[in-house]
Amino acid sequence: MTDDVLLAQTTRNGIVESSHYGAAIIMDAHGKTVFSAGDCATPIFPRSTVKALQALPLLSEGAADRFALPDTALALACASHQGEPEHIAVASDMLARTGYDYGVLECGTHWPLDNTSARALAAVGQTPCALHNCCSGKHAGFICLACSTGQEVAHYTRPEHPVMQTIARTLQDVTGAAHTAANMAVDGCAIPTWAIPLSALALGYARFASGIGLSPDRAEAAGRLRHAIAHNPTMIAGTGQFDTLVMQELAPRVLTKMGAEGVMIVALPEQGFGIAIKCRDGSVRAAETAAAALIARFARIENSPILAHYMRRPLKNWNGQRVGELRASPMLAEDFLPSAISDQT
Amino acid sequence: MTDDVLLAQTTRNGIVESSHYGAAIIMDAHGKTVFSAGDCATPIFPRSTVKALQALPLLSEGAADRFALPDTALALACASHQGEPEHIAVASDMLARTGYDYGVLECGTHWPLDNTSARALAAVGQTPCALHNCCSGKHAGFICLACSTGQEVAHYTRPEHPVMQTIARTLQDVTGAAHTAANMAVDGCAIPTWAIPLSALALGYARFASGIGLSPDRAEAAGRLRHAIAHNPTMIAGTGQFDTLVMQELAPRVLTKMGAEGVMIVALPEQGFGIAIKCRDGSVRAAETAAAALIARFARIENSPILAHYMRRPLKNWNGQRVGELRASPMLAEDFLPSAISDQT
Repeated sequence: MTDDVLLAQTTRNGIVESSHYGAAIIMDAHGKTVFSAGDCATPIFPRSTVKALQALPLLSEGAADRFALPDTALALACASHQGEPEHIAVASDMLARTGYDYGVLECGTHWPLDNTSARALAAVGQTPCALHNCCSGKHAGFICLACSTGQEVAHYTRPEHPVMQTIARTLQDVTGAAHTAANMAVDGCAIPTWAIPLSALALGYARFASGIGLSPDRAEAAGRLRHAIAHNPTMIAGTGQFDTLVMQELAPRVLTKMGAEGVMIVALPEQGFGIAIKCRDGSVRAAETAAAALIARFARIENSPILAHYMRRPLKNWNGQRVGELRASPMLAEDFLPSAISDQT
Repeated sequence: MTDDVLLAQTTRNGIVESSHYGAAIIMDAHGKTVFSAGDCATPIFPRSTVKALQALPLLSEGAADRFALPDTALALACASHQGEPEHIAVASDMLARTGYDYGVLECGTHWPLDNTSARALAAVGQTPCALHNCCSGKHAGFICLACSTGQEVAHYTRPEHPVMQTIARTLQDVTGAAHTAANMAVDGCAIPTWAIPLSALALGYARFASGIGLSPDRAEAAGRLRHAIAHNPTMIAGTGQFDTLVMQELAPRVLTKMGAEGVMIVALPEQGFGIAIKCRDGSVRAAETAAAALIARFARIENSPILAHYMRRPLKNWNGQRVGELRASPMLAEDFLPSAISDQT
């Protein structure tokens, strides 16, 4: 903790209300550290930030071609979606191409994270199914991979299943971080997850961003995934979400993915950089804010409305009155932090 | 930050995933510090934790008697409710007693925080009104106070309005912390809020818990509010909420109130203690967990199912599988932290 740095703070009328600490690191694909702040060595659970890496075998093993998956499906395989109708349609279509439906999914069921979509479901007397799970696209990709490689689909989320073995091997190869029983746990969607150093996560995304350091089949897969994500930012998250809004403005120069408990990755293909951030308290808002600052600074993007918004996000009350802001740490943003905005205006 | 202490951590299969730091203090009504950890001197915004203190004038100024407010209404005036039907009914009734309806409220409108209630509204084609705002009970109390004392109700949320002046004077008297322009901001529900030291917040609730150090009319008001809250824990928050669950099991021995951005207060009438907690990163889950530990230890409550639950809260995935836990810092809980529970069982 004492090694961590301030990532973001909220203020109310200019007075600090809450403070978020954590770590951030930027690596290139050769393993050079471009920027580092805080404890980037202690293993952290990357959560949903590894989804694009987990999707590499979907392409490199031939499943995407076998089932002729469109780019929307490839993007959804990398997504934490909000359960909006377009997400459900794509996930359902992915499964249909294998001959299965949502009954095969082992990710569990929850109401759409998008409240409007949840209320719309309720308004027509429906309840959610596993397709509405924010990880259903990733799991549909697992089903495609299992079917394409001739595996049983049952229990595909168990660590010993060939699909999970393939995913784990890919993650280890790309991030360079070994998986052991001692750093293994279960993720929110029931598949295994391994704690790895933040530096390894950044290295993995530098390789994903550039193709450098990947085998040719994985490099090609990474390129196709970058293309699919960049052209379908609404698939990755959804209405009003950081990843979607940032990529709608800045893809393909900037690709981002949030993870639960305050993790964030960014791939910067032009620079060949991977950025990994862990807010130690698990705050997603702080990870987003820190990411915006590092993107502006290290991708040298000035005058981006969406980055400016997230570097100094207005906090409003229920009357729409601005009462404070969430701002990135000046140490992260350097000269790229926008000027102070006035509270209560 | 360096003065703060670990309040709570999440683990996944025993591996630390996220850590929450902050401060906690326990005071008696004579100003004696019973326990202190972290930075309790820097002013913090108490947010909704001061609602019971803000409600004192509703009784001491005669408005509650004038409008014959039932205990449910007195409790709702101290609440951050979830917008469930019973909350809406009580808030609506409070306003009806003054001859007004929800159109007079200046707190703004949002969908019920309780998702089931929000979806139920949507299912019958309705949208929310200001009654569904989590602060509508407090605001209805302000309207009662304005009407009882012959004030105009318009602009009752402005700092210069007599109702806000009365509230501010009460807060300063009870907490002993002066309000100045330099520590003032606007709260989420549009009324003024002042940053005060955590120690002052704890002192205020020690006085609220015991009546000691309050004027006779405020001491009587505090007693009636304690009674109303203790007998209506569902009014204070709602289904599945910390405050409601803890008080359903432990009131009137334990009264609790959460506030936004990781603030929590506890009143322990038997001990005459007030507890105030600020999780520096704004996390409500951490403040709840720390509160459970301090309640068990300083109210000497052993074998409480609800406190044991919150001191080591299971984290489950969407299949209901236990994948980790949120646990209180052993430093706070001392001997009261329950034994480790096994993940993935």
